[in-house]
Amino acid sequence: MKQKILDAFNFRHACKEFDPEKRISDEDFAFILETARLSPSSFGFEPWHFLIVQDMKVREKLAEHCWGGKKQFPTASHLVIGLVKKGCFMRWDSEYVQDFMRYVQELPEDIVKMKGDFFRKFEEEDFDLLCSDRALVDWATHQAYLPLANMMTAAALIGIDSCPMEGFHKKSMEAALHRELGIDLDKYTMAYAVAFGHRKNDPRPKTRRPMDAITTWIKGD
Amino acid sequence: MKQKILDAFNFRHACKEFDPEKRISDEDFAFILETARLSPSSFGFEPWHFLIVQDMKVREKLAEHCWGGKKQFPTASHLVIGLVKKGCFMRWDSEYVQDFMRYVQELPEDIVKMKGDFFRKFEEEDFDLLCSDRALVDWATHQAYLPLANMMTAAALIGIDSCPMEGFHKKSMEAALHRELGIDLDKYTMAYAVAFGHRKNDPRPKTRRPMDAITTWIKGD
Repeated sequence: MKQKILDAFNFRHACKEFDPEKRISDEDFAFILETARLSPSSFGFEPWHFLIVQDMKVREKLAEHCWGGKKQFPTASHLVIGLVKKGCFMRWDSEYVQDFMRYVQELPEDIVKMKGDFFRKFEEEDFDLLCSDRALVDWATHQAYLPLANMMTAAALIGIDSCPMEGFHKKSMEAALHRELGIDLDKYTMAYAVAFGHRKNDPRPKTRRPMDAITTWIKGD
Repeated sequence: MKQKILDAFNFRHACKEFDPEKRISDEDFAFILETARLSPSSFGFEPWHFLIVQDMKVREKLAEHCWGGKKQFPTASHLVIGLVKKGCFMRWDSEYVQDFMRYVQELPEDIVKMKGDFFRKFEEEDFDLLCSDRALVDWATHQAYLPLANMMTAAALIGIDSCPMEGFHKKSMEAALHRELGIDLDKYTMAYAVAFGHRKNDPRPKTRRPMDAITTWIKGD
């Protein structure tokens, strides 16, 4: 099992161009999305939304703002845009957070109160997230990278390629999301795109720093 | 295979307390770290470092600043602190980035130049990351959530529990990391802690929003 998983991690690479003839089945793509849905997030508040852009005309419009996705957008079997919920959702006193604890997490009222207090303290004092809109949305964005990793890993485990993309001009891409798809930019920001499909070409060999360059052990007695 | 993977995603939960008698083998923990090492990152620059804190006295000192880790720090088999590289590393013109392209990614000199230009454009224009130290380190922190997800998923796939933790006071925790372990706070910030081990108690049932609440399909003709 461990070797199979490591094989999948080595199989995964940032696939620049997909074979447009090779499609992902509905079942396999539903599986990939399910691993996003089941991903963890800070306080469990799932500060994300995923657009699955299968309309090729829309992909073409969006690709204009994504220099890192010129080959991926037109060839991917499935293209996901990862949106992140902004402050109006993610403040401790927002209706979203309060309702989330009650109706999604199904917490009893005393726990809602207690968890809400912890979350206020976390946002205000521990991480100083309320100092700017950007700080709060950047923290929410951290969370959205958890489902991103899980979707790519889950895909690789069943032999599906992927490419995560940050290579876009954020302002003009978001303007296009508003114009083409009606995305409310007061409520959402775009974190990344991620394409799925099957590779057209073999990748160059994977490079990484060695383990001892990325870890420090603090051993006990 | 797909069902086994989904079972692992359902097995994973934020494990609050571990059975201190049940240790993770060296081989299994090396496997978990290897999935962090093989994780992707923006431009492939791996803006992370992992402390594995096995000294119980150090854990005790750090736990003072981590209200979300009171039970996890003393009982986890393995405790990882996820550090993120700050601007002195992550600016496009830093020695780290330039050397990384040459000596880790082994890119030829003309590609180093081209990729460096893209990265400068990305930091300056696309994402406006150089507007503040916090914006740059927050972007680097996004990346560090990819190995976090992968470590937890890989652990779950081999039946090991985990708990990701942001519930700490960032300033006092980082001061303790400096004091106890000599971490250079000009170079690193702490993103999260993540504990690994085997659960002491069964979790409450997992809650998530339904798929249609977190996805929007833009279908073609």
